[in-house]
Amino acid sequence: MAQLKEGLAGVVVAQSKISKVFGEEGRLIYQGYDIDDLAPNATFEETAYLLWNGELPTQKELQAFQQQIQEKRSLPSEIMNLVTGPLVEAHPMAALRTAVSALAAYSPDPAPTPQGALQAGTDILAKMPTITAAHQRAQQGKDPVEPDEDLDHAGAFAHMLTGERPTEEAHDAMTQALVLHADHGFNASTFSARVTASTLSDTYSAVTSAIGTLKGGLHGGANTNVMKMLEALDASGEDPVDHAKGLLEDGEKIPGFGHRVYRTMDPRAVHLKQWSQKLCDQIGEPHWYEHTAAIQDFMLEEKGLHPNVDLYSASTYRGLGIDKAYYTPIFAISRVAGWIAHVAEQYDGNKLIRPRAEYVGETDLTWEDLSDR
Amino acid sequence: MAQLKEGLAGVVVAQSKISKVFGEEGRLIYQGYDIDDLAPNATFEETAYLLWNGELPTQKELQAFQQQIQEKRSLPSEIMNLVTGPLVEAHPMAALRTAVSALAAYSPDPAPTPQGALQAGTDILAKMPTITAAHQRAQQGKDPVEPDEDLDHAGAFAHMLTGERPTEEAHDAMTQALVLHADHGFNASTFSARVTASTLSDTYSAVTSAIGTLKGGLHGGANTNVMKMLEALDASGEDPVDHAKGLLEDGEKIPGFGHRVYRTMDPRAVHLKQWSQKLCDQIGEPHWYEHTAAIQDFMLEEKGLHPNVDLYSASTYRGLGIDKAYYTPIFAISRVAGWIAHVAEQYDGNKLIRPRAEYVGETDLTWEDLSDR
Repeated sequence: MAQLKEGLAGVVVAQSKISKVFGEEGRLIYQGYDIDDLAPNATFEETAYLLWNGELPTQKELQAFQQQIQEKRSLPSEIMNLVTGPLVEAHPMAALRTAVSALAAYSPDPAPTPQGALQAGTDILAKMPTITAAHQRAQQGKDPVEPDEDLDHAGAFAHMLTGERPTEEAHDAMTQALVLHADHGFNASTFSARVTASTLSDTYSAVTSAIGTLKGGLHGGANTNVMKMLEALDASGEDPVDHAKGLLEDGEKIPGFGHRVYRTMDPRAVHLKQWSQKLCDQIGEPHWYEHTAAIQDFMLEEKGLHPNVDLYSASTYRGLGIDKAYYTPIFAISRVAGWIAHVAEQYDGNKLIRPRAEYVGETDLTWEDLSDR
Repeated sequence: MAQLKEGLAGVVVAQSKISKVFGEEGRLIYQGYDIDDLAPNATFEETAYLLWNGELPTQKELQAFQQQIQEKRSLPSEIMNLVTGPLVEAHPMAALRTAVSALAAYSPDPAPTPQGALQAGTDILAKMPTITAAHQRAQQGKDPVEPDEDLDHAGAFAHMLTGERPTEEAHDAMTQALVLHADHGFNASTFSARVTASTLSDTYSAVTSAIGTLKGGLHGGANTNVMKMLEALDASGEDPVDHAKGLLEDGEKIPGFGHRVYRTMDPRAVHLKQWSQKLCDQIGEPHWYEHTAAIQDFMLEEKGLHPNVDLYSASTYRGLGIDKAYYTPIFAISRVAGWIAHVAEQYDGNKLIRPRAEYVGETDLTWEDLSDR
């Protein structure tokens, strides 16, 4: 029997051209471009195009892609009714997962080919902000906001969430958050999308798997958990470092720290930290940023742990006025760009992903009839 | 960089006590019991109990488990409306995936613990036959059939599908089909459920991933594809062996053959072959069995390939009068027993499943502004 590789840590499962995490240097590239170049420069649509096609779009290509997304942004009325009716009390990630799964009913079963993935992917990517914004507003007892065709993806999402066109700064912050979360190697949600695609199942199935996987507290759920921690800290009136010490003493995990790959501060967190400071200042609640920064310093000193992408995305979204239950859906609305790129790459020269287990149970038990038990 | 393990073939990802595939001997055990003992003796409920608890139930334990399932069999009216309304034209596996995902809205977010998995699992396992039967009947323009509380799981499913209580023989055949498909090591759908659970996401998410993964043609979709092949053969009027030869010459894959693990005839296929012969005879259509058997012999001689579980499940379900589009959902209705057992096992001492990729793309591209492209 081969050696046990629990959690597949360090196991190389495929070749990929989509993104690379340089764990030692704290660097992340998408298709060869450093996120430090992309974050201040690229729109989310440009980033998705890059991830899907391996090169930055020309002006004409970008315009065509933006138009496709805009045309697909509205939901079929039955899906809108589902999201704002039976799913209204559901966890926002459960609502998003269910609605994306249901979208498959409106598209002929897409072919398990790279082209089929991008076609279905455009539909899914376009509609995810509409689903999440409608769900958030329904939870608040508000009607959905019609998509504004003059806005790009980040702007349209912010507008559908709040009913107001975002300020230039809020627009920039949302754009950068979406660009920074768009891909990250073979993380668990991306890997689950690839496992699903590897049976030659369809792209709706693969993205549905990924949304459910991202929901977990060890993955996308962590940004919501960071905000819960910050709120608990705020309510306690404690010093941030004392609060963090108390959590560690109680055996609790502090969300927003540590990563299977990085040995430095997550390069995405560097950008988000700046946004957190700026936006929390602007809303007159600088303590969300300050407490986070104090916990960052403490965790490095005490545990040698660096912040990951989730630590400062929480206070950034707080600065944008977004309800904490929707932080993980924002991650999904961005990461779907990467999921689709990976599903397309998986279909291209597909090999079924099927590992083994080491069986450690009984092997020769004898059946006993129910009457003898 | 570690060695590339494409498709994770032979990679051991975890220890497990749930089931073991003996590839060389062609043997399959669930929690220590050989399926050759379980198939003729166990009900599906006994099998699920065994997979979930590691031992066969006493009479009292089985009765309590059966009662829990019976009580949970009916769907919330909104889910029934979803399945028979907006999802009616969807692929049966897309409908099942969406409905199971939507069920999460009716259960408080279950804890990512073994106990939480079994609790949510009972709800999901109980309702999957109701979902699939209602979808099939809605596609035929028929109303759903209320669950009959006097019938066990296999019987209730057959009754809800057809509106008639199954004969003793049809009941036995459905029971054995469900028992035989209930678990099979770290197959792709089970693995996807474990990847999803490994982020500490919930059980509804994990099963939703698994359904989407099972849908693919390289996994659960194969049994439907076997029937499509048999129907095409029938329509062609060709000799079965000539037809199979033609498919191979055209570079087509013949579904129902080969397996990543078995080097013999799949032990489940041994049982299903007997059912196929008996049931096809009884409906006066013995050719479904005979053609399958002829192709089995040809494939062993020509390609050295043995039949897997899908080859004879197709004609078995045909003998039971079931529409071929619903063969894969039957697989899911059975395999959910295994998925839940694996999700519970994953939560117990969980480790995030996150592999690596070998990056083979560009690393140092320079950003160009859109106006320069």
